[in-house]
Amino acid sequence: MTKQRIVIDMDDVMAATASKFIKLYNEKNHTNLKESDFLGKKFYEVVNPESYREIHERVYEIGFFRDIEVMKDAIEVIRKLHEKYEVFIVSAATEFPNSLKEKIDWLAEYFPFISWRNIVFCGDKSIVSADVMIDDHEKNLSTFKGRRLMFDAIHNQQIHDYERVKSWKEIEALLLP
Amino acid sequence: MTKQRIVIDMDDVMAATASKFIKLYNEKNHTNLKESDFLGKKFYEVVNPESYREIHERVYEIGFFRDIEVMKDAIEVIRKLHEKYEVFIVSAATEFPNSLKEKIDWLAEYFPFISWRNIVFCGDKSIVSADVMIDDHEKNLSTFKGRRLMFDAIHNQQIHDYERVKSWKEIEALLLP
Repeated sequence: MTKQRIVIDMDDVMAATASKFIKLYNEKNHTNLKESDFLGKKFYEVVNPESYREIHERVYEIGFFRDIEVMKDAIEVIRKLHEKYEVFIVSAATEFPNSLKEKIDWLAEYFPFISWRNIVFCGDKSIVSADVMIDDHEKNLSTFKGRRLMFDAIHNQQIHDYERVKSWKEIEALLLP
Repeated sequence: MTKQRIVIDMDDVMAATASKFIKLYNEKNHTNLKESDFLGKKFYEVVNPESYREIHERVYEIGFFRDIEVMKDAIEVIRKLHEKYEVFIVSAATEFPNSLKEKIDWLAEYFPFISWRNIVFCGDKSIVSADVMIDDHEKNLSTFKGRRLMFDAIHNQQIHDYERVKSWKEIEALLLP
């Protein structure tokens, strides 16, 4: 039987990108914000928009993506998914040309079992077809035809139209019963 | 009405990659081969396999993709396609991490009307879904569900299972009647 295909997003799903932004914001503003400070709030209720925008511009810089931390349990669960499913990593990264090689190097470091054949960089994920999508952005999930898992993130707390997963352990329980 | 989506390959469809290989081969071997010397022949009947493999390894080098010439009439016809269709550029490039930014820079130089939103880099094109695919490789066309146009190339002369196009002007006549 053909294996089902799962497409997995990188930022804020495999990689703790929001944590890096908060860390940079704290360093710049001498604050001590944690992800939990954002729970149930709108993002700009917590940060200073002007200051945050400056931090966010750093995504265009060389090196920004290379040292982001891996999300808890992602390596262990994605390795298991990789055995049962065809796992594709799909990152909306073409907006950030410097990120592309960094993201490949990052994947090679933490997910060496993922082949280059199973990596996709794009701008608009509606071009991708598969059976399951795990993503934190509604814009990516909304056009997807298969099963849609919204990975819990600071910025998607107000969206309730998708099956929500809060951790890789939850994904393991759902997809590897 | 929603526009139809066309996915267009880069190497040997938009970019004259085979010509660059032949040029490098000629320089190294003091030969004077042209693309027309390959017509109706198997590739390795014309080149020395050992010497060609060395040339081909250069695809991994920084800069290899950046200076490849644009295929004849590609800019003009793709600009017209872009008006009538949703054009996505889809290149199987993740095998060559150094090529990714170069390919974005190359597209920005010759096809500035193509947004980063419409660029896809992948390893296995079977993940991509659209209405029309223009590609020179059977491995990419064979799993595609829409209309499949095989772009004429040295290496695909023995394959007769696809609608074949020999130039961008032929594509214009077919898709922009």
